Amino acid sequence: MTYLKNDPDRLDVTLKERRSLLPFKNKVLWFTGMSGAGKSTLAHELENSLHLKGFLTYVLDGDVLRQGLNSDLRFTPKDRKENLRRVAHVARLLYESGIFVIVAFISPYAKSRDFARKLIGSDFIEVFVDCPLEICQQRDIKGLYQKAKNNEISNFTGISAPYEKPTDSEIIIKTNKLDIKQSVKKIVDYIEKLEDDG
Amino acid sequence: MTYLKNDPDRLDVTLKERRSLLPFKNKVLWFTGMSGAGKSTLAHELENSLHLKGFLTYVLDGDVLRQGLNSDLRFTPKDRKENLRRVAHVARLLYESGIFVIVAFISPYAKSRDFARKLIGSDFIEVFVDCPLEICQQRDIKGLYQKAKNNEISNFTGISAPYEKPTDSEIIIKTNKLDIKQSVKKIVDYIEKLEDDG
Repeated sequence: MTYLKNDPDRLDVTLKERRSLLPFKNKVLWFTGMSGAGKSTLAHELENSLHLKGFLTYVLDGDVLRQGLNSDLRFTPKDRKENLRRVAHVARLLYESGIFVIVAFISPYAKSRDFARKLIGSDFIEVFVDCPLEICQQRDIKGLYQKAKNNEISNFTGISAPYEKPTDSEIIIKTNKLDIKQSVKKIVDYIEKLEDDG
Repeated sequence: MTYLKNDPDRLDVTLKERRSLLPFKNKVLWFTGMSGAGKSTLAHELENSLHLKGFLTYVLDGDVLRQGLNSDLRFTPKDRKENLRRVAHVARLLYESGIFVIVAFISPYAKSRDFARKLIGSDFIEVFVDCPLEICQQRDIKGLYQKAKNNEISNFTGISAPYEKPTDSEIIIKTNKLDIKQSVKKIVDYIEKLEDDG
């Protein structure tokens, strides 16, 4: 009777074996962009499309995580870094479990995005949801830009905190030039090409 | 062109829809018990069995998470509570994504286990991996009990920190009385009965 912990002979189930149960090869699509650029909307529309194709998907939404796992964190540079560190680890766990992960997360710092990329490896795909600040401010669905300008919110990306534009994203979606359908199609085409290439 | 965030009309993919892609109804099996009781071994053996049945599974192992997501935490009561809070949230995210989640985690506090149970809901199944402290100490695979007795490790469950025995676990596995095969069978039988009951 052996109840060895960390038994070197133990054969744990691997991602490769999990993928044998699934009709797709999972990835981590990491959406970065400013508030109002369209990350969450695009992430969920993409999820709907992929789900209809039989992909098992999950959207990690920055706003939603801040109500749960990351509810102890604020918007200081230090907390933003910790926020992203946790999301990157959670994305990796979901990825290892076989899920096609879609992350919708401002992720303003290049260093933090690089951390996520390294943690996840070659299946990490960065999607820059690119939209001019003026248009994000015009949309201002939740009135956050107005609050930031009135100093009611501090450390707000684009107003009182930096957004370091990505320079090497695999996919760029200009949401002021493409509509949602076109945006989703561009990403799905990219994914399907990867599937075809194996 | 609408890029609404938190659009109330947005139809997000639900767990129910994800389950329609999978040949099983996923749960969260939460293994609690002292170091050396056999949680990790049992969790991975169970995972192997379920994987062979076509279940998409993932083991959240306390020791492994402490090297990644929870690498900033120590073993003080406060940090243990935070450790468990995060694991419960991660278990829930994996669960919502459709994964059959197996958590192997000392989880010494009844309050923290209750937190996880409430967060996850009716698909939470607690498995008490029950083994007398003397036998855990005899096994002492990683030499941790010896170190704890020598005061080289502080806050060690069973020696210098409490373990609050569960009183209402759905499944109890006495690893000093059942071998691994019998233990796994007991749990698989429980899960299959749930599947049959719908």
